[in-house]
Amino acid sequence: MTDIYFEDFYKNQVFELGSYTFKKKEILKFANEFDPQTFHTDENAARKSIYGDIIASGWHTGSIYMRLLYDGLLNRVASMGSPGTEICWLLPVHAEDTISANCKIQGKRLSKSKPDRGILEITGYIHNQENKLVMTQKGILFVKCRA
Amino acid sequence: MTDIYFEDFYKNQVFELGSYTFKKKEILKFANEFDPQTFHTDENAARKSIYGDIIASGWHTGSIYMRLLYDGLLNRVASMGSPGTEICWLLPVHAEDTISANCKIQGKRLSKSKPDRGILEITGYIHNQENKLVMTQKGILFVKCRA
Repeated sequence: MTDIYFEDFYKNQVFELGSYTFKKKEILKFANEFDPQTFHTDENAARKSIYGDIIASGWHTGSIYMRLLYDGLLNRVASMGSPGTEICWLLPVHAEDTISANCKIQGKRLSKSKPDRGILEITGYIHNQENKLVMTQKGILFVKCRA
Repeated sequence: MTDIYFEDFYKNQVFELGSYTFKKKEILKFANEFDPQTFHTDENAARKSIYGDIIASGWHTGSIYMRLLYDGLLNRVASMGSPGTEICWLLPVHAEDTISANCKIQGKRLSKSKPDRGILEITGYIHNQENKLVMTQKGILFVKCRA
């Protein structure tokens, strides 16, 4: 059900987006498909690496954040997609780590060229179970206007 | 086999990374798991959207680029991971689109704090079958020094 439009957002608004626990099986599955660097896929190699054990691909953490953003917010938003994003991977995510996400509206403006939509700047903050920030994501989202 | 170290890279070096054809089934599978916005998962809704048909999640395109980067380069590189990236999604990727990727070394420097590694700035360029740029990715990569 789409019931949140551009007009409904305001600067500094914060949304809690829930949490997710990374299972080793899922880390390996994603990495074997998309990012088979050995510290994501090979337990022996990972143990000898600077990470000490298997860590999730940053693309996996990003994709899980996307899912939390969808379940916690976008499933109700008249989203028209995104032209880009900036991601910082600050700390590794290991198997059995639980991440929790929230996001904040940093800014909003109407599109100058397309009056049916507005442009949101949203920053996502992803913490682990020790409340340490593991990832941030600055994104742009196009959102339909209600009017 | 790891045989490419920090010393082996130079500014403006270009790597061709191969290509990938997005199948609708794969687009739907990724999107249903990570990014179920309706223009990624629901053919009827997508047809009525600004995109006209199902398009791949940007996270999917990014993850596929990561795989091409791995197969075409990183599988031989003494990579130590990445602290972040900037992605621009310039055009939608539809089912049956074939993307081709290359990447360019934009800069390199030794780490000041950790003398065992260097820092590469790499930009990835992802074109579709009409040679239109659909995505760019500016990334940072930590790479072990040989010496």
